[in-house]
Amino acid sequence: MTSPTYFETFDVNELFKHFPLEQEFAERFRTLSRDELFAQQDVMFRRCVARAWQIPFYQRLWGAAGIEAGDIKGLADITKLPVFGKHEIMASVELCPPLGDFHGWHDGTKAGDTSMVFHTTSGTTGRPQPLVFSPKSREIQNLLLARLYRWQGMAAGDVVHSVYGHGMINGGHYVREAVNHFTQALFCSAGTGIEMRSVQQVSLMRDMGATVIVGFADYIKKLADVARAEGLEPGRDIKVRMICGHLGRESRESLSAAWGGAQLYDWYGVGDTGAIAGQGPDQDGMYVMEDAQYLEILGVDDGKVVADGDVGDMVVTCLYKDDIYPIIRFNTHDVTRVLTTPSKLGLNLRRIEGFLGRSDNMVKIRGINIFPQAMAPILEEHGGFAGEFICVATRDEKGRDDLAVHIEVNGSVTDATLSAEFSALLRQRLGVEMTIVLAELGSLAPLTGLEVRQKPVRLIDKRFK
Amino acid sequence: MTSPTYFETFDVNELFKHFPLEQEFAERFRTLSRDELFAQQDVMFRRCVARAWQIPFYQRLWGAAGIEAGDIKGLADITKLPVFGKHEIMASVELCPPLGDFHGWHDGTKAGDTSMVFHTTSGTTGRPQPLVFSPKSREIQNLLLARLYRWQGMAAGDVVHSVYGHGMINGGHYVREAVNHFTQALFCSAGTGIEMRSVQQVSLMRDMGATVIVGFADYIKKLADVARAEGLEPGRDIKVRMICGHLGRESRESLSAAWGGAQLYDWYGVGDTGAIAGQGPDQDGMYVMEDAQYLEILGVDDGKVVADGDVGDMVVTCLYKDDIYPIIRFNTHDVTRVLTTPSKLGLNLRRIEGFLGRSDNMVKIRGINIFPQAMAPILEEHGGFAGEFICVATRDEKGRDDLAVHIEVNGSVTDATLSAEFSALLRQRLGVEMTIVLAELGSLAPLTGLEVRQKPVRLIDKRFK
Repeated sequence: MTSPTYFETFDVNELFKHFPLEQEFAERFRTLSRDELFAQQDVMFRRCVARAWQIPFYQRLWGAAGIEAGDIKGLADITKLPVFGKHEIMASVELCPPLGDFHGWHDGTKAGDTSMVFHTTSGTTGRPQPLVFSPKSREIQNLLLARLYRWQGMAAGDVVHSVYGHGMINGGHYVREAVNHFTQALFCSAGTGIEMRSVQQVSLMRDMGATVIVGFADYIKKLADVARAEGLEPGRDIKVRMICGHLGRESRESLSAAWGGAQLYDWYGVGDTGAIAGQGPDQDGMYVMEDAQYLEILGVDDGKVVADGDVGDMVVTCLYKDDIYPIIRFNTHDVTRVLTTPSKLGLNLRRIEGFLGRSDNMVKIRGINIFPQAMAPILEEHGGFAGEFICVATRDEKGRDDLAVHIEVNGSVTDATLSAEFSALLRQRLGVEMTIVLAELGSLAPLTGLEVRQKPVRLIDKRFK
Repeated sequence: MTSPTYFETFDVNELFKHFPLEQEFAERFRTLSRDELFAQQDVMFRRCVARAWQIPFYQRLWGAAGIEAGDIKGLADITKLPVFGKHEIMASVELCPPLGDFHGWHDGTKAGDTSMVFHTTSGTTGRPQPLVFSPKSREIQNLLLARLYRWQGMAAGDVVHSVYGHGMINGGHYVREAVNHFTQALFCSAGTGIEMRSVQQVSLMRDMGATVIVGFADYIKKLADVARAEGLEPGRDIKVRMICGHLGRESRESLSAAWGGAQLYDWYGVGDTGAIAGQGPDQDGMYVMEDAQYLEILGVDDGKVVADGDVGDMVVTCLYKDDIYPIIRFNTHDVTRVLTTPSKLGLNLRRIEGFLGRSDNMVKIRGINIFPQAMAPILEEHGGFAGEFICVATRDEKGRDDLAVHIEVNGSVTDATLSAEFSALLRQRLGVEMTIVLAELGSLAPLTGLEVRQKPVRLIDKRFK
C-alpha cells in the first residue's frame, strides 16, 4: 500500500461508539441532558470551524462578513457566521472548476491525496452541484440513515426495494450503502422507472418478497397502481409492511392505503448533509439527529432564529464533518417548524414537523407566505380531490401577485360548487383568497412531471418571466 | 450493536496481506514458484469445498455426479467435480425462490443473519440471475479489480468516468466500489446512456477533466462520436489517456484512435466471479489473478482440459469465496486460450488471450467452430469495414448449417469485389466459406442493439426456430 484508501481512514467501532444504534441510541437520548448534548456539540463544532478556516471558500465567506479566526469561540457564537447555500457552492465551482474550493481535497500537493466519494445532486436545471465526501463522513452519514431505518423497524429478514436513482446522483448510492453497510436487510437497488421499468419493478418486488419500499412518495404510489394493473394486489401479493421515504406533505393516508395499509416513516436530509431528522416508532414528528447535526430554523425573510413552533428555513451544521468538507450553516431553503409537544418516547431530542415546502418556491400573496408543496394535506381533506395539483403564480401590471391552484378532481371540472368548496377550504386554512381551476384526472401530469421526475413540480412561477 | 454488519465481517489489513497491490503484487509473483502457488491454492480450495458440502445446491450437484465428501482431497481432484453454469443456478432459483439454494445465506435460523450484497446480472432475456456476495468476498472482488486498475496505471489525480449501468445490475456498483474503496482516483458514476444522456456524459467528462474511461467498448466508442458532434475533440478537449474496459475482440486500434490515442487495457470477469484476469502494463495477454481465481480451460465439445494454446470454455473456481457462496467450477461459457509465450514482466502467472466469444453462441460450420464475437479483429484488417457486423446462422432441410455475415461497409453495398474480398479474408482466417451481405452504414444498429445494449448482439441464430 502506497497511500491510505477508503477503509484505512475510519474505524467503524469508533463510529458505533459515537453514533449508537437501536436501544443504545434511544437509551442515550433518554438520559443525556440538553446541556450535556450542547457540550458535545460544542466540541465537535470547534473542530469543524478550525478545519473550515483552512478552506478558501470559508475564508472568503467568513472574511467578507468581517469574521476573524478568534471571533467564533464555540457553538454559542454560531449566529455570528453567515449562512450559505447551493448558490454559493455553485459560485465556488465557477471560481475553481470543476470541484470548487469549498472543501479541502486539494490540501496536499495534488488532487487525490486522499480517497473521496464524489456525486452530484439530482438538480434538473443547470449544472448539477458537486457533492464530496470523505470516507469517514460518508460512513457516518450512512450510519445515521441506517439508525433511522432500524429505529423505524427495518431488520434482518426485510427485503428493501429502493426506487432512488443512481448514475451520478447521490441518492440511490447513499441509501444502498446505508442499508448494505449498517443493516442486515436484503437490498434491491431497482432505481427509478427509467433504470428499471415499473412493470419489471413490481415483478421484482413480488419475486423477491419485498417488505419495505424506500424512495420518493409519488413514484412509490405509482408503483401500487402499476402492481394493480398487473393483477398484483399490494398487501396481498406484495406484502410491503413499511414505506420509508421522502414523503413530505403529500397524503400519507392514500399512500398507505395504496400499499395495503403499510406503515409510513418520513425522514429529511439533503445531499450535502445526509439524514438530518427522521420519524421514530412513535411517528410523531421527526427527531433531529442532534449528535451529528446542529439544526437552526431561521426566518425566511430576516434570517433570524425563529421561536419554536414558527416556520423557517432549515439551516444545518454537520457536526461530524470535520475533514474534507465541513458544512457550517448550510441553508437548505427547505422550510419546517420545531414541534413544541413533548416526545412520546421521552427522548431529549428536538423534533421538527418535516418538510413543509421550499422557501425559494414560496409565494407571498397579499402578505401571506404560501408554500405550494404544503397544500396537499389541506386539499386531501376534500373528498373531491383526486391527488394531483399544481400552483401557477402570476403578477399583474400593478405588481400584485396571484396564485391559481389547478386541482385534479373526481367529478366535473365545470362544477361551480366544487370549485367554491376548494376555494373556501384554502382561504380558511391559509388565510388568503386564491383562484381555483378544476382539472381532469391525469391532465396535470405534463406540468407536474409526475411520470419523469422523482419530486413532482408544485409551482410554476410566471412572475419573473 | 445487536448483530454484525458489513464492516465487522472482514479485516481490510488481512485482505491487503493476502491480495497485495502494485509493486508488492508484482514482486510476489516474480518470486513465488508455481508449486508454492499451487500449495496456497490447494489450502484455499479445501476451505471452499468444505463450505460447499454444507450447501444444498452443491450437495445435489455433486451427489448426482456420485461424489462423496472424502473423494475431493484437494485441488488435484478438481476435475472429478462436475461443472455448472447459469442454467443450474436458475434451476436452483426455480426450486427455491427467490434466491435459490446455491449459497449458505439461509444457514441460520432465518434469512438475513448476516449482511449480504445482492444484485442481478444484466441478462436481457428471461428472469435475471441473482448474484449474492458476503461483505468479505465483495471487498476481495473489489480489491482484485482495483489491483488491475492500479497496475494498469490508475492513480491519485485520475478522474474515472464509468459508463457501467446501475439499478439492480451488479456492474456499475461493483466498479464504483472498486475505485472508491481501493484507489485514490475520483470516480464519476455516469452509468449507461439511459441513466445519463450521452451529450450530458461528454459535458461531464469535459467539466470534470476525465482521464480514464471504464466500461464496454462499444458505448465508449460511441461517446467519442458524440463528443465530436458536440464540438469536443477527444484527446484535446477531453484528455482521456486510458480506457479500461471490457474491450473484447472489437477493434482496439479504432477505439484508441477515437479517443485521441488513449492506452487500452482489457480485463475479464463475470458477475458471479469478479475480475478473473486482466492486462498488465505490458498489454500482452491477460494475467490470471491466480491467488484468488483458479481458471481451467475446458474443451467446448468434451469438457476435458485442453492443452495450453487451444481454445476452450473458461471454468472458474473462486478460491477466496469460502463463506456465503462458494463458486467451484463455474462454466462462464466464455471462450479463450492460454498464452504460451513467456510474460515480459517475468511474472509466474498464467496469461490468457481474453474473451474470444461465447461457446453458447458458437456455430459449427462444416466441422469448424466459429465464434461470431471473434470476427471483429479479422474484419478490421480490411479498410472497407465500417465497424459493425452481425452473423445470421441458418439450417437447411438437410440439417446443414450456414452462416451469413452482414457487414457495414464504407462503400457501395453492391460492390462485388468488396464482397469477394471479405469472403476470402474470412475463409482464409477461419477456414470455412461464409455468405457475405454488405450493409449500409448504421443499418445494422436495430439488429446489434448498439444503441440500447451494453454488449452488442453478434449472432442471430435461426437454426432452432
